[in-house]
Amino acid sequence: MTMKKLINAPENLVQELLEGFALAHAGKVTLSDSRLVLRASEKAQDKVAVVTLGGSGHEPALSGFVGEGMLDISVPGEIFAAPGPPKVLEALRTAKRDAGILFIVLNHAGDVLSAKVAGDMAKKEGIRFEQVLTHEDISCAPRNDPENRRGLVGCLPVIKVAGAAAEAGRSLEECAEIARRMEAGMATLAVAVSGATHPSTGEVIAAIDEGTMVVGMGQHGEAGGGTQSLKSADETAEIMLNALLDDIDAKAGDELFVLLNGAGATTLMELYLVLRRVNQLLADKGITLARSLVGEYLTVQEMGGFQMCIGKLDEELKALWDAPCDAPAWTRK
Amino acid sequence: MTMKKLINAPENLVQELLEGFALAHAGKVTLSDSRLVLRASEKAQDKVAVVTLGGSGHEPALSGFVGEGMLDISVPGEIFAAPGPPKVLEALRTAKRDAGILFIVLNHAGDVLSAKVAGDMAKKEGIRFEQVLTHEDISCAPRNDPENRRGLVGCLPVIKVAGAAAEAGRSLEECAEIARRMEAGMATLAVAVSGATHPSTGEVIAAIDEGTMVVGMGQHGEAGGGTQSLKSADETAEIMLNALLDDIDAKAGDELFVLLNGAGATTLMELYLVLRRVNQLLADKGITLARSLVGEYLTVQEMGGFQMCIGKLDEELKALWDAPCDAPAWTRK
Repeated sequence: MTMKKLINAPENLVQELLEGFALAHAGKVTLSDSRLVLRASEKAQDKVAVVTLGGSGHEPALSGFVGEGMLDISVPGEIFAAPGPPKVLEALRTAKRDAGILFIVLNHAGDVLSAKVAGDMAKKEGIRFEQVLTHEDISCAPRNDPENRRGLVGCLPVIKVAGAAAEAGRSLEECAEIARRMEAGMATLAVAVSGATHPSTGEVIAAIDEGTMVVGMGQHGEAGGGTQSLKSADETAEIMLNALLDDIDAKAGDELFVLLNGAGATTLMELYLVLRRVNQLLADKGITLARSLVGEYLTVQEMGGFQMCIGKLDEELKALWDAPCDAPAWTRK
Repeated sequence: MTMKKLINAPENLVQELLEGFALAHAGKVTLSDSRLVLRASEKAQDKVAVVTLGGSGHEPALSGFVGEGMLDISVPGEIFAAPGPPKVLEALRTAKRDAGILFIVLNHAGDVLSAKVAGDMAKKEGIRFEQVLTHEDISCAPRNDPENRRGLVGCLPVIKVAGAAAEAGRSLEECAEIARRMEAGMATLAVAVSGATHPSTGEVIAAIDEGTMVVGMGQHGEAGGGTQSLKSADETAEIMLNALLDDIDAKAGDELFVLLNGAGATTLMELYLVLRRVNQLLADKGITLARSLVGEYLTVQEMGGFQMCIGKLDEELKALWDAPCDAPAWTRK
């Protein structure tokens, strides 16, 4: 099967897409010569810096979250591959400041390894940072085995609240506590209804049989859940929400955010149906849908499906969620 | 082939998606009992109202453009179908005010007919409005035959600048002149690389052979251009840009906006490659890429491909483009 993508030479793909990205959002981000994505405006040296890293091919993630009230630096890797430790170390050196660095890492082997090697070297250089690992995918391990849970789109709410806290001048310890509190109260589950192709190699990322869907698929088509018959929007919403509510032990009176993250080919139309049903189900349980976010944030090329991420909100986290931000993929007045 | 969509009963699709949409963007929009999409905040009766109409299934368009600095009311129809004249008349009655209504209509037979019938009745009721038709698709008719040009994603920049003018308190005549100036200087061309399915009927909207792409496809898979072999991002960008520049008679020294609107399954990654090449080609011609917008705004379900829309900007249009707005699909601080 021919790949139906509009690309140029695969070896230039990441460089070219980052150049286009920086051009499209020139008022918000810049691309450094060494391929770090930085805020366009001068960094405020007196605030905590927020830094992350991750493979490309998931646009707008993660560089789309660089901007006022969110990330200071994103370190993009090649397609679906972590950036190497030297580039991550360079980002930590660039972000170095007295206020310190909040270093947000999604739990994928390559990202964690690059962060570990770069972090060890940064420590020796006296760079002050706190690392927060996100690992909220409930499909591959139980809650008491967090090291084996993958980091999916839950990085986004963590970046949002921690970024808002940093912007407000909170200390590194406070920003890290806020990030960890958000992370601890959340859970994500993915469903895939159709596959995608790797844009560099043309390989099929996930083949999904006609009339079926896979619950629990990882960010690159990794297994994790079971294949089942394709369900309606309402049924799918209920299956996923119940698993997530159980994981975070949500109870009547709780206030939650719900983030529906389209994988690529799934329409906003479908995601709105799911949100509608989620709201009904939460109301039936006496749980409040306090905040929601629906769109494509961390994609898997042209895959069909979505990630549902829910999490507990308290008054402080709601205020940080509502704080203004101005990144390519999330602007809030 | 089974439809790979997460929906419920097709007959409830539009109602359900609008409920989810209004829930997701509760701070910005509300859904009326009669299914008009209105701004969440009280309408400012002393400003010109901006109203549009159009079929559903193209989310976030058109209701995603309702909000501060953009539309006051959107009248959604059924999937790919214009709303009937009674609903459009109701919108005009709801928007009625001394300052008048700017009524933006995309050139599609059903939309134009509903607008005409409703507009004639509104006139008899003394409702003051100016209608602006958008018809910037260069694939189906030459510039001197505008009535046969379809309205594609060019409605978005028209809504943006006219909405900003209305928000700034400009008169109905001024808002209409601004909308028409923007419209007259712009042109759109679509390319499709893979098809989609109608979410209500399961019918294939556009079947595109392996290894080919179709330039000039309309918003619902209508023919208009030629089938050709699938090209690289750079080649596709050049083919489309040259046709558009020719249509608007762009010259060295001109300042343009470029809007790249993903059809559904095409990634931001690909669109960034196209923008990068467009910028190079414009620079070679001494034309300035003054503003850009890259994302999914007016989609065709899970179709692969995109629309390229370009247009001339002057100082006033740039300032209106840059004005703050706060709609679900476009927030600008």
